[in-house]
This record gives sequence, structure tokens and C-alpha cells, in this order.
Amino acid sequence: MTEAVRTPQVVIDDAAIFDAHEGGKLSVALKSPLDSQRALSIAYTPGVAQVSRAIASDHTLAAKYTWANRLVAVISDGSAVLGLGNIGPAASLPVMEGKSALFKTFGGLDSIPIVLDTNDPDEIVETIVRLRPTFGAVNLEDISAPRCFEIERRVIEALDCPVMHDDQHGTAIVVLAALRGATTILDRDMHMLRVVISGAGAAGVACANILLAAGIRDITLLDSKGIVNSGRDDLNPFKAELAATTNPAGRTGGIAEALDGADMFLGLSAGVVPEEIIATMAPGGIVFALSNPDPEIHPDAARKYAAVVATGRSDFPNQINNVLAFPGVFRGALDAGARRITEAMKVAAAEAIFSVVGDELAIDHIVPSALDPRVAPAVAAAVAAASKL
Amino acid sequence: MTEAVRTPQVVIDDAAIFDAHEGGKLSVALKSPLDSQRALSIAYTPGVAQVSRAIASDHTLAAKYTWANRLVAVISDGSAVLGLGNIGPAASLPVMEGKSALFKTFGGLDSIPIVLDTNDPDEIVETIVRLRPTFGAVNLEDISAPRCFEIERRVIEALDCPVMHDDQHGTAIVVLAALRGATTILDRDMHMLRVVISGAGAAGVACANILLAAGIRDITLLDSKGIVNSGRDDLNPFKAELAATTNPAGRTGGIAEALDGADMFLGLSAGVVPEEIIATMAPGGIVFALSNPDPEIHPDAARKYAAVVATGRSDFPNQINNVLAFPGVFRGALDAGARRITEAMKVAAAEAIFSVVGDELAIDHIVPSALDPRVAPAVAAAVAAASKL
Repeated sequence: MTEAVRTPQVVIDDAAIFDAHEGGKLSVALKSPLDSQRALSIAYTPGVAQVSRAIASDHTLAAKYTWANRLVAVISDGSAVLGLGNIGPAASLPVMEGKSALFKTFGGLDSIPIVLDTNDPDEIVETIVRLRPTFGAVNLEDISAPRCFEIERRVIEALDCPVMHDDQHGTAIVVLAALRGATTILDRDMHMLRVVISGAGAAGVACANILLAAGIRDITLLDSKGIVNSGRDDLNPFKAELAATTNPAGRTGGIAEALDGADMFLGLSAGVVPEEIIATMAPGGIVFALSNPDPEIHPDAARKYAAVVATGRSDFPNQINNVLAFPGVFRGALDAGARRITEAMKVAAAEAIFSVVGDELAIDHIVPSALDPRVAPAVAAAVAAASKL
Repeated sequence: MTEAVRTPQVVIDDAAIFDAHEGGKLSVALKSPLDSQRALSIAYTPGVAQVSRAIASDHTLAAKYTWANRLVAVISDGSAVLGLGNIGPAASLPVMEGKSALFKTFGGLDSIPIVLDTNDPDEIVETIVRLRPTFGAVNLEDISAPRCFEIERRVIEALDCPVMHDDQHGTAIVVLAALRGATTILDRDMHMLRVVISGAGAAGVACANILLAAGIRDITLLDSKGIVNSGRDDLNPFKAELAATTNPAGRTGGIAEALDGADMFLGLSAGVVPEEIIATMAPGGIVFALSNPDPEIHPDAARKYAAVVATGRSDFPNQINNVLAFPGVFRGALDAGARRITEAMKVAAAEAIFSVVGDELAIDHIVPSALDPRVAPAVAAAVAAASKL
């Protein structure tokens, strides 16, 4: 086993971070300047009335003659922001601006951050429905579990456009892509893995579901109270459903009981897993310690026991970062005019991310770099194709 | 009396208008590119967490480190769009995009169009309140009367940021500025004018109010049923209030009775006024026929009887266009950190517009050109100063 090759950490002082955020990170630009009476008469009165009249007669023309059809609304209530928890909508806005910046940079999509001063699921759904003509797709972001499941389901049902809660599905897509990379380089059958997922929030539940859909049969899910199993009476409906479809061996207990002999650890918990527990995993396994900024176990320690190690950090190999998925997923869905982001489209996105790695596949390169410009177009093409299935 | 000098009409064919609207008129830009791991780590994880944490500890920092504090939301339900009426939110979006483009071009302000799929005042107010952390000011646009009065009042009461329904106050500000220009070039005392306003919608009511506030004592207001007077029992509360403060002579009847001997006609009605009725006005008067695209009376006909004629069109002299007001009004309010757009700020805006005309003041140049780059900065400075009064 080789030592983990640590890339040099990018050291950024606070002053540089705050300087870069002054006045925010986004601006609105005109596609064409209003520098003449003619330009003004086209973009505003009287010319614009022609366009409005045409759309009023045929609503489908809004897709062609406004920006809304390809505009992604990044919507949050600030209830589950990064590792910071429920910090509220105003404090979440820098993250949403960052997300919009990523949509533009990697997906070529315009995007506006919308932060809501309510945590009530009814009010959030209702507000998004009222805003419908403003945008063409919804990226739900940083909304806490279990509210996020209900909110996403209801917004999907209510709207005729692509909707995705990225904390769930963006993470799940990239985890599946990374797992394809890991099992390929290890020459292991993904379906035979015994997988342990620590964390049953938005990302944990979505990862469990995508791995089940991918055919993995033995998944053990843990929340803060231990292994999610059907003997527990304290589970929300989403965990109760997973208690029925995971944990075929009927394990009980905590992380020590779950990881003993397991092939894969997927950490989505903001917790810590002691090295001696990782040591009990089956040899030659896989550790994805995705907690940010502090992985559940330091990758150098994990590498003593596991064959492939990944984290969410850019300063270690194998960074599992949602930016590999969401720009291409939304771009593909919008390019195809899809009304839904289906499971098939998510799996296609994961395959596309994996395929970009190609010949570069290695123990310390199971996913492409977050900055790899080939990823989003490949994901978009695969997602668009899968939307036609 | 000189003939109206007609500027060459800008002839724009439909194809050019629709071509210019393909994909919409706006895009979102990054203030700084995400072209390196360092840039990504500043704008998104892990760096952005520092900024979010700081705002969570001190909410006032959102003003410094996000774009929201200076972002204008242009919000409409599409119920009273240009001369087109209630065409709905999707069809109104090209107008709102145009408005955002004007905010950027003339006010240097970022702005996003938000169109709402509801006409219910309670729902509109509630939605805007929930969106509060998303923006720093609200330009209400193209919302029909009388709902617009209640909605504006309630949004102003609910929010701690500048709010203005531009159809009302933007129009009123520019009309007052133009009237200052007209009475100055004619050397007439504005306060002694007998004014007739045709149209008691958003703009008519707001113009009546600003002219009353400016000290004009004899205003006659007409709606579609004739002169608004206190003997009528079919008036909404806003017209009933104006029935008490206008029409001191107790006139009844229609436009013929109102205009006989009047000094000024202000058309905001989308109607037509026959030349023979304009002919009954007092000599040397003022006609502002602002209906768009078809003025209530053709300016060449009006010029036979009136000393100063203005329209809303760019192809005749004296274009009365809201773009002279709203970019500078919001810019000034935001520059000053004002929580309200007060009557004093509106009057200051009108004076600033008038002051830009300066030595160029003439019968056919009572207001600056809509493209004059001096206007918005002058308005912004005057509004900011007035906000401190």
C-alpha cells in the first residue's frame, strides 16, 4: 500500500476570504448594452411590448424570449449550512452566491440565490410555487433533514421543471461515481460490498437510496443513536423506510458493531470514528470520510487499513465534491427540456463522472478534479440522454 | 408658437426585437473568476464558511459580505403591464428584465426580476416578506390599481428597506420634474395652474398626490366614469380620498367639462381626447399626453393650442420616461442606507431631474434625455441628501 499523497494545502488567510466577499460575489450583466435610443426602444418600451404580447398569446414563448427558462434558483432557508447548522437565511447567502458562481462557471447556467425567512415546510413550498414563472429549475440547498425530504417531494410534485435538493442527490451522485472508481481500480464487485453509512441526514439517506438502487444489498445505516434497524421506535418515516430496506443481517448497536468486518465506510456525519474501529474493517476496503472540514478519520490513518480513501477536502487525494455533479445535472436537464430529474438521470450522471477519469484511474484518483472542465459537459450530455429513456 | 420638432422615429422591425430577446436580456456574472483551487476554496468551501459564520454572529455583516444589500428586486404579478393590461407573470417578465437592465445601466445597481403567480394582495405581501433576506430594495412594478396602493403600503410597513411602486411614484416624480421645466420656460406660477388629470389608476393617483404636495390647489381628476367628485358613490377609498382633496370648484361631468379653461392636461389614461376639447383649454397651457404607445392626443395637434407638449414617446420632444427617476432614486436610497423612500426624497428627485436640464431648458426640452448619463447620479445625490432630512 502506498502512502497517501497529500497535495499542498492551499493556505488562505481570513483577510483574503473576507476581501473577496465584499459586496458579494455576483453581479447582473446585460447581454447587450443599452447605449442608444434604439437599444432602449428594443429592450424596454415600446419594443418589449411586442414580446410581452406574444408571450401572453402563447405562454410557451416565455421559454424562448426570457432568461427564466434556463435560470436556476438556488433556494435555501439556511437551516443546515455546510457544517454550521441552522444559521439562518442571511448567513447562508454567501454559500448560495457561491453555488450560483459554480453553476455559471461549470454549467454555463445563470442562477440567482433566493433565501427564505421561514423554516416552515408549507410556507417554503408555497413560496416556491408562487415564484414559479421567475425561474426554470430549482436547486434546493442546505435545508435540514427530515424537512428536506418532504419539501423536495412536494416541490417536485407542484412544479413542471427540474427540482433537486443538492445536499441529497448531488452528494449521492458523486459518491456513486467515486465508488465506481474505487471498485474498478480494486477490481471488486460493487454489489458484494458490505457498506456502512454513518449519518442519516439528507446526504446519508440519499446515498443509501442510490447505493440500493445501484444493487448493493448489504448497507448498514447509522444515525446519532446507532444502527438504524426495524426494532427502533424513534425513527422518522424516512429512516423507518430505510430500516426495512437496509441492514439485512439485523445488526444492532453502534459504529463498532457496524464496521466490524465491513468493506466500505461512508462518513456523512460530522462525527469522529476512532482509528481502532476502522482497523476492524475487512482488509483492502474503502473509506470515504466526507465530513467537512474535519473528516471522520484522518486519511493518513485510514490508509493504514483501507485500500482506497477519499474525503471532501481539496488538499487530500480523491476529493468527493458536489460540484462534479450539480452543474452538469441541471445543464443536461435544461438542455433536454426535462420536467423531472429522474433516478436514471442521476445514475447516468455518476457514470459520466466516472467515465471522465478514464485512463487516469488510480488509487489516489478515483474521481476527476473538481476543476476538470470536461466533467460538466460529459454529465450534461449523459443526463440529457437519460432524460429521453 | 413653433411647430413641434419631431425627432426621427427609430423604426425597429419585429425580427430585430424578437432576436434581441432570445434567451432573455440578463445574465449573472462573477465578480472574480473561479479558475483555481484557491479561488474555489475562497468562494465556496471551506472559505465561505468563515463568512457565513461571521454573518451568523453579526447579522449586520450581511450588508457588507453579500450582494443582497444593494440588490433591487423588481417584483410584479403581471396584472397591469405597459398598455397591455393583465397579461400574467410570464408575459410580464421581458418588461421586468428590461427594468433590471435599466437599473444596471443608469443606476449601477444589480437587480433581479421576480414574477409572482398570484394576484392576491395577501399572498403577494407575504411572499415578498419571506424573500426579504434575498434583496436590499423592492421596486414594485406593473401591479394594477387599486391593489397596488394597499400592496405598496403593506410591503413598506413590513420591510426595513426601500420599497417603491414605480408606476406610481416614478411617474409622479418625472411629471413633477417636467412641470417644473414647463412652468419655468413659460414663466408661470405652478401653484396657480388649473390641472386636469385623466386616469385615476396607479400613476393618476400618485401624480395627483405629488402635485397636491407641491402646492397645486386646483386639480380635477377623471376616471373612466368622469370627474372624481365627492357626490359619487362608486369610488374606491383612494379615489374617495382624492375626491375630498381635489376638485375645489365641485365640477361634475366628463373630460369636456373638466378641460374647459384648464391650464394643464395630464393624460395617464390609455384613452383619446379629441382635438376640439383640447382647443377649449386656456391659451398658452401645458399638455402631457403620456399614454403609450398612443398619446391621448397627437402632439402636433396639441401644439396648436398648448405652449408646451410632452409625451411618453422617444420619437417626440419632451419624453416623460420613468427611467429618469427610478435608477437614481433607488441608488440614492441605498447609498444613504435609507429604510424608506419618503415624499421629501421624491420631491428632491424631481428637482434634481429638472436641475440637469439647466441652460438647455426650452419649449421642446423641459426634461433631460432618457439617455443623459448625468441624471441618475444627480438624482441619487439629491435623494441621499434628502433622506437625511
